[in-house]
Amino acid sequence: MQPGSLNLITDVQGLTVGHAQDVALKSGTTVLTCDTPLTSSVHVMGGAPGSRETDLLAPDKSAPGVDAFVLSGGSAFGLDAASGVMQGLRDKGRGFPVHTARVPIVPAAIIFDLINGGDKDWCQSPYPALGQTALACAERNFALGSHGAGTGAMSAMLKGGVGSASLVLDSGVTVGALMIANPIGSVTTPGEAHFWAAPYEIDGEFGGLGPDPRSGLGRDLKSDKITAMMRQANTTIGIVATDAKLSKAQCNRIAIAAHDGIARACMPAHTPMDGDLIFSTTTGTKALAAPDLELAMIGHAAALCVSRAIARAVYEATPSKRDLLPTWREKNGRL
Amino acid sequence: MQPGSLNLITDVQGLTVGHAQDVALKSGTTVLTCDTPLTSSVHVMGGAPGSRETDLLAPDKSAPGVDAFVLSGGSAFGLDAASGVMQGLRDKGRGFPVHTARVPIVPAAIIFDLINGGDKDWCQSPYPALGQTALACAERNFALGSHGAGTGAMSAMLKGGVGSASLVLDSGVTVGALMIANPIGSVTTPGEAHFWAAPYEIDGEFGGLGPDPRSGLGRDLKSDKITAMMRQANTTIGIVATDAKLSKAQCNRIAIAAHDGIARACMPAHTPMDGDLIFSTTTGTKALAAPDLELAMIGHAAALCVSRAIARAVYEATPSKRDLLPTWREKNGRL
Repeated sequence: MQPGSLNLITDVQGLTVGHAQDVALKSGTTVLTCDTPLTSSVHVMGGAPGSRETDLLAPDKSAPGVDAFVLSGGSAFGLDAASGVMQGLRDKGRGFPVHTARVPIVPAAIIFDLINGGDKDWCQSPYPALGQTALACAERNFALGSHGAGTGAMSAMLKGGVGSASLVLDSGVTVGALMIANPIGSVTTPGEAHFWAAPYEIDGEFGGLGPDPRSGLGRDLKSDKITAMMRQANTTIGIVATDAKLSKAQCNRIAIAAHDGIARACMPAHTPMDGDLIFSTTTGTKALAAPDLELAMIGHAAALCVSRAIARAVYEATPSKRDLLPTWREKNGRL
Repeated sequence: MQPGSLNLITDVQGLTVGHAQDVALKSGTTVLTCDTPLTSSVHVMGGAPGSRETDLLAPDKSAPGVDAFVLSGGSAFGLDAASGVMQGLRDKGRGFPVHTARVPIVPAAIIFDLINGGDKDWCQSPYPALGQTALACAERNFALGSHGAGTGAMSAMLKGGVGSASLVLDSGVTVGALMIANPIGSVTTPGEAHFWAAPYEIDGEFGGLGPDPRSGLGRDLKSDKITAMMRQANTTIGIVATDAKLSKAQCNRIAIAAHDGIARACMPAHTPMDGDLIFSTTTGTKALAAPDLELAMIGHAAALCVSRAIARAVYEATPSKRDLLPTWREKNGRL
C-alpha cells in the first residue's frame, strides 16, 4: 500500500473538492463532488451530530446516489451550505430525476466553530453562498489546513483544519479520506509534539517526529482538561472514498470501519459532545475479484487514511488573527 | 486515573466473574454476574456478530436489568451457554418477575473458535454445562489468558485469551473491561513484540516493552496476510462496567465509546469477518455530580480499559497441546 500521486482523496479518479471560507467569520465550507452520482452511506458515532440527508444513506433507502457532500463550519447553521450546493447543482441540471424534476442529493455534516474568535454577528446566513462557491471551485488539487470547513476548526490544544490522505492497495483499488479535525480530544500526545496517528504516518507527511516513546499516555487526561476541551470545540467529520464497486450496504461497513481512524488519531474520541460522523462513498468503477477480502482491506485502508488525514489537518494549519489556539507548527517551532 | 486494586473488571464492587473450560475442546465460557440486575446496553461494530438477547438492550426496550452476561467460545453453538446460566439463575430464584414467573435476562456473545486444534466432535453441545459451571464459579478474583471463553482464542499471529483491566477516576467512579481477544487483526505491531495498546499500558501490565518506535506500521498489512488471518479466527467481544449511575441510553453511549479501545488495540479491527461487540453495564451505585463531563470520562476510561484488557489477554495466554499459534511469551522469550 502506497499513497496515490496527490496523497489526497481526489486520487480516487472523478472526485473533486472545493473550499470556500470567510477569514473574518473564521468559518467555511468544503464540498466533494463527482460528475456522476455516488453510491454512499454514513456512520455516526458521536453523541452530538449535526447532519442533513443522512437518513437516505441507510442501506434500505431508495436514493440512488449522492451528487455532492458538504462538510461545513457553522454548527447547525452550516447545514444551509447544502442549500447553496443544491442551487449550484440545479443550475447544472444535476439531481435525482423524478419525471421532469431533478432533486440534487446533498448530504451534509457540520462542525461547531461558533466560539473560535471569528465574527459571528451575521444578519443573513453566510453558508448558502459558501456552499455554492465551494462547489464552483471544486477541482482535483485542493489545499489542506486552514481552508474550507477547516478554517475555524480547533482540537483540544492546537488549531484544527482540513486534511486528506490516500492509499492505493495492491489490488489497484484507491482509497482516500477527507477530514475536518475539530475534536474535543487531542490529536497529539501530552506535550503537543507527537501525533497519536504517528504509527501510521507515511514519508513524513505530518512532520515525521515518529511515535511518542512513552507508555501510560491515556492516563494524562483529567476531568479538568476535558472541561477545558468542552468549552472550545467539538466534532470530527469527514468522507472516505474509493473506486471499488461496492453496494450501499458495503459502503456502510466501510463507514463503520473508518471510525477506527478517528479512535486512533484523537484522544478521546466519540464523546457525548462530539458529533463524529463519516460518510463513505464510491465511484464504483473497479470490480472486486475477492469482495469479502477486499472489503476488509478497503475498510482498513480507509481507517488508516482517516487517521493520517486528521494528523495532516492539524499539521498543515496556519495562524490567523484572533486565533484562540496555536498551530502545531507554532507550538513545535516548525514555521 | 489509576487501576483499581485488582486491575480487573471486578474492581467495580458487586461484580463477579467465572470461567469454565474444556482443554481438549479448546473452548470455554466466561460469565459476569451481580447479585442485583444491571442497567446495560450494547454496541455491535463487527460485520459478523453472534449474539443473543441484545435487542432488549436498546435504550427504548423495557427489560429492567441484566442478571448475567455470557462470553463464550463455540461460535453460534456457544450461545447455548446462556441456557445453562439461565438454569443456574433460575435455581437461585433470580430473574425478571412476571407475576409468579421469573425470567433471567442473560445477553450473550460468542467468538469463533471451531478451527483451533481442539476436539470439536461433540454429540451434545458442551456449552450449557460450561455456562452453568462458569456461573457457579463466579468470584471477584479470576484468571487471565487461556481460561474461560479465552481458552481457544487466537489473534492474527499469536494465541489470544481473556483479559481485564480497570481504572479508578478522579471522581471515585470505577471503570473496568473484560475482553475476549480473538481478532482477525493483530494485537502487536509487525514482529509480534510491541502491543498496539502500548501507549496506554500502566505499570508493565503487559510486558512493559513500550510503543514501537517505527512509523508507517499500518502499511504492513497485505491482502495475503488478511487472507491468512481470515482462515484462523475472528471476533473481539467483551463487557465494560462501571459503578456510575447511568441510564440505559448512557450505557449505550459508553458501549460505543468503548469500541475505540478495540480500534487502538487491534489492527485491523471491525472487519466484515469480525463479530466485534461490547456490552456496557453498571451497578449504578455512584451518582454523578456532573453527568455530561463524567460520561465523557467514563467512555474514555472504558476505551482505555478495553485496549489494555485486549493486550493483557494475549500477554497472559499460556500454551497447550495442539495449539495452532505461539503465545506472546513463547514468541518473545518471556517464559
